[in-house]
Amino acid sequence: MTKRKAPDIVVGRLPLYLRMLNQLVAEGRSTTNSQELGDRLGISAAQIRKDLSYFGGFGKYGAGYDVMYLRDQLRRILHLEQTWPVVLVGAGDLGHALANYRGFTTSGFDIAAIFDNDATKVGATIGQHEVQDVARLEKVIQEQDVKIAILAVPAHAAQTVADRLVAAGVRGILCYAPVILKVPPEVKVQYIDPVARLQHMAYYVGNGGDAA
Amino acid sequence: MTKRKAPDIVVGRLPLYLRMLNQLVAEGRSTTNSQELGDRLGISAAQIRKDLSYFGGFGKYGAGYDVMYLRDQLRRILHLEQTWPVVLVGAGDLGHALANYRGFTTSGFDIAAIFDNDATKVGATIGQHEVQDVARLEKVIQEQDVKIAILAVPAHAAQTVADRLVAAGVRGILCYAPVILKVPPEVKVQYIDPVARLQHMAYYVGNGGDAA
Repeated sequence: MTKRKAPDIVVGRLPLYLRMLNQLVAEGRSTTNSQELGDRLGISAAQIRKDLSYFGGFGKYGAGYDVMYLRDQLRRILHLEQTWPVVLVGAGDLGHALANYRGFTTSGFDIAAIFDNDATKVGATIGQHEVQDVARLEKVIQEQDVKIAILAVPAHAAQTVADRLVAAGVRGILCYAPVILKVPPEVKVQYIDPVARLQHMAYYVGNGGDAA
Repeated sequence: MTKRKAPDIVVGRLPLYLRMLNQLVAEGRSTTNSQELGDRLGISAAQIRKDLSYFGGFGKYGAGYDVMYLRDQLRRILHLEQTWPVVLVGAGDLGHALANYRGFTTSGFDIAAIFDNDATKVGATIGQHEVQDVARLEKVIQEQDVKIAILAVPAHAAQTVADRLVAAGVRGILCYAPVILKVPPEVKVQYIDPVARLQHMAYYVGNGGDAA
């Protein structure tokens, strides 16, 4: 089946739809529709139908969506039927919080190893993991065929570590460092940037709550 | 000066431009242009010019932008000439990492108080703050006229805390809990969702690096 290529912004909304469908499953619901999904997500029903249309037809006209079926299809589209091993670089406060976060496992990701370059942190245990020397980074990535990494190192170290990750075979980097990484076009970077999100909100709050 | 209303997605890119301009200032640069900004950010030059056009004219045609001037204008547009006091709710691993994060202060935000409902955490010191009982939440918000909050509590507690924040006068919530909050239209919520970002990347990595 040949389909139009989905824009990145559409792909970025699929995890949101998946989360809502998981929530509906947990509520014991079996069917839904674009109107309900839209109302609960704050997105228009038309937008949701258009987004999903890039990936096929998931509902009968007027009958809405089968919750479990649509959820499973989104998991398939996002390649979440497998569990992705992920390396976490940086065992500071943020690395600790990420290593202990249970939401990854239930969502298709498994922290395979944690690294730091600080001798006082290497050997420490976080959750179920022993912090390893970052010198072992390439070896672990290649042995476990890791394609995704989480970067929780200081800004000044981020590009150097990213270069090593990419050279070792990583193709997706979730970057917590407040920098803009230079990577080859085949590598996808996503940024977690609380400052940018706060600044985004300040625009509206400072404009007197024009948040629509 | 009456201008067209900027779409939310445009507003969301302004912090990215601001970060890049801060980086250029740190590099000692005095002028730039949409081509350079675009190349370094992975956004087209035309997109950057269009985004900025919602807020006025910032460059002479062909002469590019004055780095400091454009940075200062973006700070003004985003209401960052003031420092926003922020309350942080949740003093777990993530709350610790956020409380110790130095990037907020330099970006227009100041953690004014940290709250938790766990008696074993209340009274503990994180960075320069003593964790306060969440019972004091409303009092502190009103006394310090806090409009922005960071929510770092477990999913099951998030909506209840959000309701209290909104009732006390908060108009922007940065939500780390993996939920979708129900808030009145005048309240802006931004989500920090590493799982969604990882899933977004998995789409491309699983498609064999079609990351363009």
